[in-house]
Amino acid sequence: MIRYDHVSVPSSTARAQDPRMDFTPSPRSVEYVDRVRRFVAEHVQPVEARYWSEVRAANPDGNWRAWTIHPLVEELKAKARKEGLWNLFMPDPQLGAGLSTLEYAPVAEETGKSFLAPEVFNCSAPDTGNMEVLWRYGSDEQKQRWLRPLLDGEIRSVFCMTEPDVASSDATNMQATAILDGDEVVLNGKKWWSSGIGDPRAKIAIFMARTPDAGADRHHQHSMVLVPLDTPGVEVKRMLPVYGAYDAPHGHGEVHFTNVRVPRANVIAGLGMGFEIAQGRLGPGRIHHCMRCIGAAERALELMITRGASRTAFGKPLINLGGNRERVAEARIAIDQARLLTLYAAWKLDQVGALGAMTEISAIKVVAPNVLQKVVDDAIQIHGGAGMSDDTPLTGFFAQARSLRLADGPDEVHKGVIARIELMKRGVSR
Amino acid sequence: MIRYDHVSVPSSTARAQDPRMDFTPSPRSVEYVDRVRRFVAEHVQPVEARYWSEVRAANPDGNWRAWTIHPLVEELKAKARKEGLWNLFMPDPQLGAGLSTLEYAPVAEETGKSFLAPEVFNCSAPDTGNMEVLWRYGSDEQKQRWLRPLLDGEIRSVFCMTEPDVASSDATNMQATAILDGDEVVLNGKKWWSSGIGDPRAKIAIFMARTPDAGADRHHQHSMVLVPLDTPGVEVKRMLPVYGAYDAPHGHGEVHFTNVRVPRANVIAGLGMGFEIAQGRLGPGRIHHCMRCIGAAERALELMITRGASRTAFGKPLINLGGNRERVAEARIAIDQARLLTLYAAWKLDQVGALGAMTEISAIKVVAPNVLQKVVDDAIQIHGGAGMSDDTPLTGFFAQARSLRLADGPDEVHKGVIARIELMKRGVSR
Amino acid sequence: MIRYDHVSVPSSTARAQDPRMDFTPSPRSVEYVDRVRRFVAEHVQPVEARYWSEVRAANPDGNWRAWTIHPLVEELKAKARKEGLWNLFMPDPQLGAGLSTLEYAPVAEETGKSFLAPEVFNCSAPDTGNMEVLWRYGSDEQKQRWLRPLLDGEIRSVFCMTEPDVASSDATNMQATAILDGDEVVLNGKKWWSSGIGDPRAKIAIFMARTPDAGADRHHQHSMVLVPLDTPGVEVKRMLPVYGAYDAPHGHGEVHFTNVRVPRANVIAGLGMGFEIAQGRLGPGRIHHCMRCIGAAERALELMITRGASRTAFGKPLINLGGNRERVAEARIAIDQARLLTLYAAWKLDQVGALGAMTEISAIKVVAPNVLQKVVDDAIQIHGGAGMSDDTPLTGFFAQARSLRLADGPDEVHKGVIARIELMKRGVSR
Amino acid sequence: MIRYDHVSVPSSTARAQDPRMDFTPSPRSVEYVDRVRRFVAEHVQPVEARYWSEVRAANPDGNWRAWTIHPLVEELKAKARKEGLWNLFMPDPQLGAGLSTLEYAPVAEETGKSFLAPEVFNCSAPDTGNMEVLWRYGSDEQKQRWLRPLLDGEIRSVFCMTEPDVASSDATNMQATAILDGDEVVLNGKKWWSSGIGDPRAKIAIFMARTPDAGADRHHQHSMVLVPLDTPGVEVKRMLPVYGAYDAPHGHGEVHFTNVRVPRANVIAGLGMGFEIAQGRLGPGRIHHCMRCIGAAERALELMITRGASRTAFGKPLINLGGNRERVAEARIAIDQARLLTLYAAWKLDQVGALGAMTEISAIKVVAPNVLQKVVDDAIQIHGGAGMSDDTPLTGFFAQARSLRLADGPDEVHKGVIARIELMKRGVSR
Repeated sequence: MIRYDHVSVPSSTARAQDPRMDFTPSPRSVEYVDRVRRFVAEHVQPVEARYWSEVRAANPDGNWRAWTIHPLVEELKAKARKEGLWNLFMPDPQLGAGLSTLEYAPVAEETGKSFLAPEVFNCSAPDTGNMEVLWRYGSDEQKQRWLRPLLDGEIRSVFCMTEPDVASSDATNMQATAILDGDEVVLNGKKWWSSGIGDPRAKIAIFMARTPDAGADRHHQHSMVLVPLDTPGVEVKRMLPVYGAYDAPHGHGEVHFTNVRVPRANVIAGLGMGFEIAQGRLGPGRIHHCMRCIGAAERALELMITRGASRTAFGKPLINLGGNRERVAEARIAIDQARLLTLYAAWKLDQVGALGAMTEISAIKVVAPNVLQKVVDDAIQIHGGAGMSDDTPLTGFFAQARSLRLADGPDEVHKGVIARIELMKRGVSR
Repeated sequence: MIRYDHVSVPSSTARAQDPRMDFTPSPRSVEYVDRVRRFVAEHVQPVEARYWSEVRAANPDGNWRAWTIHPLVEELKAKARKEGLWNLFMPDPQLGAGLSTLEYAPVAEETGKSFLAPEVFNCSAPDTGNMEVLWRYGSDEQKQRWLRPLLDGEIRSVFCMTEPDVASSDATNMQATAILDGDEVVLNGKKWWSSGIGDPRAKIAIFMARTPDAGADRHHQHSMVLVPLDTPGVEVKRMLPVYGAYDAPHGHGEVHFTNVRVPRANVIAGLGMGFEIAQGRLGPGRIHHCMRCIGAAERALELMITRGASRTAFGKPLINLGGNRERVAEARIAIDQARLLTLYAAWKLDQVGALGAMTEISAIKVVAPNVLQKVVDDAIQIHGGAGMSDDTPLTGFFAQARSLRLADGPDEVHKGVIARIELMKRGVSR
Repeated sequence: MIRYDHVSVPSSTARAQDPRMDFTPSPRSVEYVDRVRRFVAEHVQPVEARYWSEVRAANPDGNWRAWTIHPLVEELKAKARKEGLWNLFMPDPQLGAGLSTLEYAPVAEETGKSFLAPEVFNCSAPDTGNMEVLWRYGSDEQKQRWLRPLLDGEIRSVFCMTEPDVASSDATNMQATAILDGDEVVLNGKKWWSSGIGDPRAKIAIFMARTPDAGADRHHQHSMVLVPLDTPGVEVKRMLPVYGAYDAPHGHGEVHFTNVRVPRANVIAGLGMGFEIAQGRLGPGRIHHCMRCIGAAERALELMITRGASRTAFGKPLINLGGNRERVAEARIAIDQARLLTLYAAWKLDQVGALGAMTEISAIKVVAPNVLQKVVDDAIQIHGGAGMSDDTPLTGFFAQARSLRLADGPDEVHKGVIARIELMKRGVSR
Repeated sequence: MIRYDHVSVPSSTARAQDPRMDFTPSPRSVEYVDRVRRFVAEHVQPVEARYWSEVRAANPDGNWRAWTIHPLVEELKAKARKEGLWNLFMPDPQLGAGLSTLEYAPVAEETGKSFLAPEVFNCSAPDTGNMEVLWRYGSDEQKQRWLRPLLDGEIRSVFCMTEPDVASSDATNMQATAILDGDEVVLNGKKWWSSGIGDPRAKIAIFMARTPDAGADRHHQHSMVLVPLDTPGVEVKRMLPVYGAYDAPHGHGEVHFTNVRVPRANVIAGLGMGFEIAQGRLGPGRIHHCMRCIGAAERALELMITRGASRTAFGKPLINLGGNRERVAEARIAIDQARLLTLYAAWKLDQVGALGAMTEISAIKVVAPNVLQKVVDDAIQIHGGAGMSDDTPLTGFFAQARSLRLADGPDEVHKGVIARIELMKRGVSR
């Protein structure tokens, strides 16, 4: 969801190195990176293969309503929490690690190297974004009831914004409604790509909808409302595969809301505040997504080299055939550039907020998933058939990259934002 | 599987338009194209969505051993056969349509527009290739026992070449063995990406293996052997997903052969003839694959435009935003070029055989799947989340394109063949 | 110059192989190709290096007003004419070879392999287009006075359409005027990229301008007028370099027309007919340009391989380092596809005219120069510093490719045409 | 020139954010950037057009032996020096600004925005590299005689390394020799792409050659020798155009050295030290080149937007047609990434030296010129014909980008270095 008219333009028309730029990592960021990296290498990556094969055996596709969580996950969560590697994303030092966006970014990269890792550290989407919303905008009661168990990793949550019947990249297209009726709010609408809906531990959704009479201007006509998933009228229609089955069932689903009634107290920050909350929610979340992509790309590159060096054809290791080494170099170049730009965006977000860092946030939102998609494609190619199966994490990384090119604003919309700012910097208003 | 040392080089060193080039479609090719196109539009595409949803409901993933075939498929097959749209790929006019490769190519394009269509016309891989092998090289007995029911669409077949433990693009890496022991041949080895293995109607496999003492030279040390799937020692270990679940279970699996014994009469064309058969098998099959990719790309482009024109964001149809129309044009340009090159390759294959058309066959093998992958990626992007789900055929087309970039020789190997020929044409031998 | 509203759409909405497609080369086309190829190899390429070094010595840049033509050119022209390799582009068998567009296309490819060749066969732009205009639309007097000496290679000509002060890809932007005043037409306007203006043998220009009161509709408000270059008021302001000096001085210049008066009889086909003539002029000319690009790309590929095989670094021939062989293969694939599409466009142009072949003509106009630009870039890279100098024809080919991406409609405009037709085929009107 | 076997590999095998990363600009760097930017905008860019037209009028091509320097250059140099914007590249605070590589990098970006600017600040290649060599390795006498007047901007210098007859990217191919003969050194060999040779103010060359018996190992068999250009036996054979005439005559030439005799005292740092000097020379120079590319890309983007917003076609500003705004966004993204990576490389170079920063230096050497080439290509496309002429700085920027993809190691060699390091990090030695 993009708010074009909030685009802010730096007062200087000349483009030059930001003199205040300083994204040197802090000592505690370095320390967390180190500890998370070791935890992932020692405890998570070794059990990945076992996890997936057992999960697949236990949860045949289509049967997501009976989905069970593998005990490994809860074991690893307990271990991570005990070691203090818990809620690292949370900027509030009382509730989590208290790291800035910039400090957390390289930690997120490390968690991106394994599919399992983000959840193990209680740092996985959509919970992170939802927790941040509750922390920033929630009432005390909302925090007590929902934020607390989320921080404790006891429940999981869902975010319901995208709709099946309209182009959701334009927020003004939204059709779902949240209408005040006495002390209750009545919710109606169809949502899909509602992330996290398939998880049996998911108990609460944040539902975004239009409240037409809420505000004077068009940026105050949306609301965010907390909806317990067992409220009458909430119906999960189906789970959505992402390039096959990979994303299910933790993943995304289609949910219909029909005359769902919740107390007015479930509205977050008041009716009409949805747009503002959404803007704030998206900045750090995009940084996290992008850094996880970079971590995944590092792992894919590692797999590409390892495989390419261990198999032989036509008398040479695969990695030395044709343009394969050039592809290794191109991956290294692309990854390093994407990382630096994401760290810069994180720093700028910390300094001037999401609106002041729009160019950079939109830029990394385009760059990081595309870099991952390309590196994964090359890595798969070197793996041959194995690359397409689920014997490696590569197809999972592909699904992650490909879906992120659409989620939180498609590539094209972000390019539109960047271009608009460039033109405005030079006095071109349209 | 590529045989580098068979590369033949045109005697003329100058590269110019082949003066004999003539790939004008024949009247009967045009007529078949027309009839197949109408059949697909009227009978196949309208039931696609129903087919998939019912198949998914009936066959939860992981349960491929109990897989059942949807009755629609057999109904459509009967209807197609009744209309004379049956075995169109088969060059022998007694057994099929008797079309040349060039004549069949545009028919294959039409079948590529729907996932269901190739099987409906009894023109789907790997049966087509296997039938061609039996037709060209099979004994009368082999033809009677296996070719006949395949031509009748009563059974299906499997092709077992690729191996999990080596880089199979280099045939000399092959580890499976077929050793003569009296009147029997003893088969051992692990195969994967064995296409068609998941189909409950599959009864017979062609197993390729090394027969070390078969021939004097290294191109006569491989054999192809017919193995009924119920032979003791044949074990399907698992089905392999392609980017998730899409390909299963008709699709590909891992099959182990342990001391499998079949009569010597099951060897096709004699021990040591495997390499030669493989070469002949690959030419027409690649043309078919590529033309189906082109048909799929046409359908993806159609979906991209239809969706892009029907949804609106920021006040415009999606198709008019950003570079979307440029992407439509680029798709048209790429598709038209790929089609012409594939038709040219088909014509050349008919004229001078697969070895004389190596540049062209390798070229289309690189071009067609990559064009499809790009067009599908753009089409998915315009569809938003819907594009990634299985609400459209797009992710299926993606899996088709992506796997074909590896199957029958990865892109890089085909580029190596083309480069080698270019250099040889200019007297550069290494 | 593009006329969007003339876009014609095939009646069939389905896209499939055109059943009438037949672009088999005719025997006389094959024969001409063969003779031209030999002539270029034996007589033109061997003198290229000498020609350039002597031309550079004799004509220091900036001194184009004193430009002299190297005697080699006239010698080669005489030789070619004597051998009957003259005016091969001219469809009228009385005036030239009488080849169809399709028949001439592969001949144009051969001429594209040397910078000198097109002029040697009296087949170089802009004369070819100008001669075609005079042949199709000229009065007997115009033909006698200007077409005859052009056909004889005695004079050269200029085409003046593009203007420096407006985006000339949109013809409605044109500012130059041709106003009737009694028996005379008064011409005013600034033109640039007027091709051929620097040649001392150039005697006549075709000047395109607006005649606002000429016609009822907006497609009859432009005129083409013959202007002898010695007419008072015609002033060549300067020659324009194309990426440095390569194009000058045969090349392009800026010409101002100030109250230039010519007899009304100099108007071609009547006032207001300029648009229609322009449309007809562009079809075959684009085919010729594209086929010359393909010939140039073949030569660049040849140079790339020859150089890459003859120089060594790090213990290997350059051609075997990194991704170089992949680039050879990609060049072969791209060239072969571009050639087939251009031949198909030529055939379609012959069959249904330029408007019916708009997709194909726009497609090749995008494809061929971009293929050449890419192949040349790769070839230069393998040549190292030598590639950037004028020791090889490569930078000349680069200038040819790069300027053609703008001339006769920039890439983006042609993509717009193709997209518009695609959308119309599916009933999307805007 | 690349020295593969000096590749150093970080001890950590895991790739993660360098914890010591800190490339925050220092206050004095920020101040210099600001002053240089204003100087360029106020004094240099306004006279660019006048400079070029007068230079072209005064110095027709081919006449480089009589080349005269435009008085503007010396005037601007005097002004810049007076303002203290002089020798900013020089790390020695006694001799120049005393900036670190990282501090100077953003200053170099500003100078890259105009062709004239680097020389105005006495910061242009090859003088900067030559001065650095003399400063680091020169004897007192060498410094007095050559470094002093170079620092004062009184003379200019030449660097002679590349040879016409071998692939010079592999230093072991070098054929030129420097042989001790008593108190003299005798030089023989052919060099080309000798930068700066066309400048009438050039008085001294650094000549690199093999001294076969100099050292025990193969990295001590090259020498660098100072050769006054008026020494007998030094002959400039010709100037070399870069894509036409752009680079001449300040630019590059072919120089032959035939039995050239200079005193042994002219050897820099002793016979056999050439390799080591060359390595040190290349690091900072590559940073400077890349930052100038980034500055040039910023200017090209500025021109693209300004032009695209000021011209109209088909009813819209060009910038809003087709994919043009996407291209603006892609340029912004690419430029910002290239800048960050170059600054990171500069910082690392300062911290650990060129060998420790090989991945990063090779990476920017690939990235920066390619980014510039792409942005310039897009900017030219929007300018139409004007873009290809010399009415804008765009073709000059193109020549800069294109030649830098070959100079100081071609793209492919740098990718080879990066791949080698990646593989070594994972224990793959070949």
